[in-house]
Amino acid sequence: MSIIVLGTVALDTVRTPFGIRKHMLGGSAAHFAMSARLFSNVNLVAIIGEDFPSKYIDFLRKKGIILTSLIKGKGRSFKWEGEYRGDLNTALTLNTELGVLSTFRPVVSEEQRKIKYIFLANVDPDIQRHLLEHMHSPKLVGLDSMNYWIHHKRRALLRLLKKVNIYVANDQEARSLSGESNLIKAAKCLYSYGPRMILIKKGEHGVLFFSDKFIFSIPAYPTDKVIDPTGAGDTFAGGFMGYLTRAKKINAETLRKAIAIGSVAASFNVEDFGLNKTARLTMRGLKKRLGHFREMTIF
Amino acid sequence: MSIIVLGTVALDTVRTPFGIRKHMLGGSAAHFAMSARLFSNVNLVAIIGEDFPSKYIDFLRKKGIILTSLIKGKGRSFKWEGEYRGDLNTALTLNTELGVLSTFRPVVSEEQRKIKYIFLANVDPDIQRHLLEHMHSPKLVGLDSMNYWIHHKRRALLRLLKKVNIYVANDQEARSLSGESNLIKAAKCLYSYGPRMILIKKGEHGVLFFSDKFIFSIPAYPTDKVIDPTGAGDTFAGGFMGYLTRAKKINAETLRKAIAIGSVAASFNVEDFGLNKTARLTMRGLKKRLGHFREMTIF
Repeated sequence: MSIIVLGTVALDTVRTPFGIRKHMLGGSAAHFAMSARLFSNVNLVAIIGEDFPSKYIDFLRKKGIILTSLIKGKGRSFKWEGEYRGDLNTALTLNTELGVLSTFRPVVSEEQRKIKYIFLANVDPDIQRHLLEHMHSPKLVGLDSMNYWIHHKRRALLRLLKKVNIYVANDQEARSLSGESNLIKAAKCLYSYGPRMILIKKGEHGVLFFSDKFIFSIPAYPTDKVIDPTGAGDTFAGGFMGYLTRAKKINAETLRKAIAIGSVAASFNVEDFGLNKTARLTMRGLKKRLGHFREMTIF
Repeated sequence: MSIIVLGTVALDTVRTPFGIRKHMLGGSAAHFAMSARLFSNVNLVAIIGEDFPSKYIDFLRKKGIILTSLIKGKGRSFKWEGEYRGDLNTALTLNTELGVLSTFRPVVSEEQRKIKYIFLANVDPDIQRHLLEHMHSPKLVGLDSMNYWIHHKRRALLRLLKKVNIYVANDQEARSLSGESNLIKAAKCLYSYGPRMILIKKGEHGVLFFSDKFIFSIPAYPTDKVIDPTGAGDTFAGGFMGYLTRAKKINAETLRKAIAIGSVAASFNVEDFGLNKTARLTMRGLKKRLGHFREMTIF
């Protein structure tokens, strides 16, 4: 039960109405790993800079994340600074320092190349393709991207989409890449680009799943403690992919449950800054909230 | 099994990316009635003007709506003109002609005053209170309002909220009246104003229900045929209140089902202009989609 995630490990500075946190451990791969670890061995593929605090590396290791492909590059770590206002739905990026990320080429071990469950979190599509080409026998490949690549590397992204099973996008990205404002239409369009499964994350409004076999839609787990939504989408993806890795079977039943688990994992993520809450999350805590979530949505 | 609805019967002109329709039959009470009629006898309380087309009155009568308290005032009918752009989520009001609505005082028969299920759709809170005071033995009172009254008659609205069981608001109204951006916090605040049940409609994102006993949240029924969302909220309320009227019991089970039924009814409403689709809706068609909806959301 192993999964490999390619993405970023970052130093995040976040301002919300609830306070400011500077240089927290963040990044797509870190958030993904923190929820996926509950279900499977997580192999993290990312780059950090020379200034990266060793305490964060120790922390990831203590959480059971496999760090053999977390490389240290020459230069400074990737840093992101963002702000949330009002309803905390949209992040305003104040500053991005790519640092070592601009020269990143993922390197994985021969052992890791055999891993069948793969998640390509948000980085340059060329880097995503690079990793994917090195994998021996992918069984389930998920991909996330962002508006920057949709606009600046659309062709590379479209080429890559033909090779993945699940495209995970937020509503804005889905609309932007498809040119459709209605999300069902957008999902149908993205499906035509290659992936047999489309997962659209709508933040506080939940998730829409589209495949040729079924459509599935659930709200977000309702919480009134939204402190910092950074990484919620990656936490969702980690729970979703992690559960599927453990379940082994990919069918309507496991996909539905994976989506619900991802949603619940994401609901914990937003309730505190950075990884504070998901780092303490246990399988028991997750299952308990999953039960509440089921009660809240069944009719 | 009777319900009484106070609201508007209007002539709607709607522009969407799919075309323009002029002077269609519309209004909160008409949309409410068109879905509530599937479950109970609907007594409509509203005012129309001298210019109101008799074909619309015949149409409502043929649909089984009880029109003894649909009065004709001296002057012109209430008219609304709006436009939807892009994702069709937000209506842009181009023009409003109050006409006879500005002098409306609802009059109901002695027989109607005994009706126990009451819905006060969006009109001036003073008119809503006027009707409510005339009712002999309310069992379940639902109330809808709009931003205009929240800003211009806040006090009257707050006084009225103490006397209703269910406050139905869209997300924008809920945030505006409560001053809270998080919807759970908003619901808790609105609950403190009096109503023991709060229903927040989020358009394409579904519904959030809050009471002291439970929270319930479902997405909207996913449809890619959004042609004209006018009246979707009232159609929702009609299905919701109509079902509860028929169920007689108000408990967690009937409330959940009522919310799902309202959501499904609303999904039909948006798929064509005005009342085109809900006027043709049958119990069989509604139940069929309700089954699909359950499949789409269960995990």
